[in-house]
Amino acid sequence: MKPKIKKHVDRIHAIAGGHERFNPTDTAKSLVKLRGYDVGLFFSNLSKLTHQHLGEVLLELPADAFAAAAERLPPHRLARAAEAIESDEATDLIQDIRQADATLAEKILSLMAHEERREVLELSKFEEDQAGAYMEREFLAAHPDDTVGDVKTLIRLFRQNEPAAPIIKLFVTNDEGLLLGTLHFTDLILFDDATTIEEILQRGDRKAPLSIRPASPIADVVRLFEEYDLNIIAVVNSEGKLIGRIVYDDIYDMIRQIETDQAYGLAGVDDEAEESSVSRAAHQRLIWLLFNLVAIMAASAVINLFDATIASYIALAALLPIIAALGGNAGMQALTVTIRKIALGEIEYDGVSAAVKREALIVLANGLSIAVVAALIVSLWFGDIRLGAIVAGALLLNLLVAGTAGTLIPLGLHRLGIDPAVASSIFLTTTTDVFGFFIFLFLAQTFLL
Amino acid sequence: MKPKIKKHVDRIHAIAGGHERFNPTDTAKSLVKLRGYDVGLFFSNLSKLTHQHLGEVLLELPADAFAAAAERLPPHRLARAAEAIESDEATDLIQDIRQADATLAEKILSLMAHEERREVLELSKFEEDQAGAYMEREFLAAHPDDTVGDVKTLIRLFRQNEPAAPIIKLFVTNDEGLLLGTLHFTDLILFDDATTIEEILQRGDRKAPLSIRPASPIADVVRLFEEYDLNIIAVVNSEGKLIGRIVYDDIYDMIRQIETDQAYGLAGVDDEAEESSVSRAAHQRLIWLLFNLVAIMAASAVINLFDATIASYIALAALLPIIAALGGNAGMQALTVTIRKIALGEIEYDGVSAAVKREALIVLANGLSIAVVAALIVSLWFGDIRLGAIVAGALLLNLLVAGTAGTLIPLGLHRLGIDPAVASSIFLTTTTDVFGFFIFLFLAQTFLL
Repeated sequence: MKPKIKKHVDRIHAIAGGHERFNPTDTAKSLVKLRGYDVGLFFSNLSKLTHQHLGEVLLELPADAFAAAAERLPPHRLARAAEAIESDEATDLIQDIRQADATLAEKILSLMAHEERREVLELSKFEEDQAGAYMEREFLAAHPDDTVGDVKTLIRLFRQNEPAAPIIKLFVTNDEGLLLGTLHFTDLILFDDATTIEEILQRGDRKAPLSIRPASPIADVVRLFEEYDLNIIAVVNSEGKLIGRIVYDDIYDMIRQIETDQAYGLAGVDDEAEESSVSRAAHQRLIWLLFNLVAIMAASAVINLFDATIASYIALAALLPIIAALGGNAGMQALTVTIRKIALGEIEYDGVSAAVKREALIVLANGLSIAVVAALIVSLWFGDIRLGAIVAGALLLNLLVAGTAGTLIPLGLHRLGIDPAVASSIFLTTTTDVFGFFIFLFLAQTFLL
Repeated sequence: MKPKIKKHVDRIHAIAGGHERFNPTDTAKSLVKLRGYDVGLFFSNLSKLTHQHLGEVLLELPADAFAAAAERLPPHRLARAAEAIESDEATDLIQDIRQADATLAEKILSLMAHEERREVLELSKFEEDQAGAYMEREFLAAHPDDTVGDVKTLIRLFRQNEPAAPIIKLFVTNDEGLLLGTLHFTDLILFDDATTIEEILQRGDRKAPLSIRPASPIADVVRLFEEYDLNIIAVVNSEGKLIGRIVYDDIYDMIRQIETDQAYGLAGVDDEAEESSVSRAAHQRLIWLLFNLVAIMAASAVINLFDATIASYIALAALLPIIAALGGNAGMQALTVTIRKIALGEIEYDGVSAAVKREALIVLANGLSIAVVAALIVSLWFGDIRLGAIVAGALLLNLLVAGTAGTLIPLGLHRLGIDPAVASSIFLTTTTDVFGFFIFLFLAQTFLL
């Protein structure tokens, strides 16, 4: 065996034996390397993992390795793996298996323990952008009448039953399961075993505990965690009953998800489609390209209006891309900054007019600079100062339009309740192309011929 | 007083009195609303806050309100506020004041207690993309010989001295301050007061504790937190001595920072410049626009090469934007997906060739579809099937180039150690514009005239 391959086998051996700290990402990477070298080594090393580690590693495997593993591992082993990991992860696992093989997913669900199966079925109802999809059903809750001694027993039991779920804070619920408060363990450690939770709650701050609903949008959840520097929050149902928790590592995932959706929205791609088959990704991207094709026809039609002008001064055709590119780029700068300010809630502060004013000043300054530089280059290149002046005028006006549109389009969409990341860029480039070509060719027709 | 304004005054009153949960963002929002209504109300309500709350709220104020507050508040009050918040936040606060008024920042530093001033000066040395900039110097550490009873005393002391710093885990260090381990408080609560930390460490897992260095890039820190689901990590110096900690809420900020840098890089804007004055933001954006101006000149030169062709068939000019826009859009789709896969480490899994193959298949499928649709529209519009066929051919070839370039450019830059988010898009659009115009006009010259 090559030393490079042996290194990965040794690592998995060390993890299976508990000698090395388990990291699902690195373990999955090692397994993928082994798979590239010898499929047999991949399966034999995958089998060495504990149920919990197997479940977490499967979630980190790329799609093809995942499908191969799901097909080859015995279904009862996959059911044990799903039971061993946290309920939100188990739900992801079953949904990933369903994408590869729906019958297999049903079979594994049927092999799971009743309680864990019920949890997965409940969590499956939530969309990827809802808090419920990230909720763990495992949590530690005590009653106000419980003593610190009772809580110690609860902790021992919880650790035994849910070794995969970290204990972060202690929730306090009453007989009906309603959430009454949240305690950090440093709140508990300072009291003796006979002290009741009620007494400890009385001493702390008496504000109502923060909580969220499972249908809350993940953007709201993230904002709450960021504003209050939370590491855990209780999820309650419509009656106020505690039904789960969301913890800090889910927030890392949620922020990534929100940011991915935003970056992808601007480019006209979709996260779910991209993680799916080539044909689904291609189809989703095609729709965006077709919208762009229709939008850009408007710009072509504007140019076509001025065909006589271009025919009598053919250099105009060569300069069209300059007008379009600089308008588009300056507009995208304003658009990107505005979308980000909206997403981070900064626009609410400074107000819309401050944002518009700032962007207008920036494009005015840059429009003047770019106009001067472009006028010089074009005048020298084509030996015609009038042409340079027309390019300068068109660029300045188009940059002003670009900066304003780049600010107002996302703000307007946001006010209409439409995600500005998804639709802004087509509107923006159509605006700058159509306006830019029109003003450039109109100025040329008026002053050049 | 209007009810809307009274609501904000009441909120700040409730926070100052400890009746409402403190949230620096919301408090800052209320203060900004008050400032818009009456500057006097802004200052009088700002003064009501405790030192710690004042420090945290100042960090959330928009630049102009912040500058006004820093100018008006007594310097010794600002020094107390900086002392009351965590050391990384105090460093941000002093740096923000320095941007508004460098002399004032020095004065406040000189008024701060020796220990806190030293911490701020040390943390100021780190760049925004280094772990050190997010490090808190406040942490709770025990010696292996300490008992659980001793730790309880430590907790009480820490809470008294550092009320703003949450206790998350207990670090264990030896006489030299070297990090030996990390314990969760649920590890401690199960033992009696006489048990030593050494005994508890012996029972747990004996793996070396995870730690990072203050100069580590924040991307590495975030990856560690995400892969091991951490909520805290120890920061150690080159000798292994514990010097600080980084906690989950810093990770929320780091992920946002990394994502902002990536989104801004693609559009040619810079986060620091955007948060600064109009002139600095404009200047940084102008450099990007000038690069684009030079790059797009290459595309203009290509069109100029074919001026005779365009002169004899003027409709070609109107179709140029279609070639450029669709190549650019399809390329940006591939580019955005590739940059994201690089950032999330997914490329390492599937390998470069799998990514290139997938993107090639997608642009081939979409290139064919777009070519057919565009050919139909152009043929009908201009009543010339040959023109439609030439547009179709040029679009198909340009989309293939766009998809390949959109994948290979960021991969190549990444391999060269250059951040692909920053430079990729100029290279991409230059490639698709130059190639697209060339192939379109070349096909027209060859087959149309």
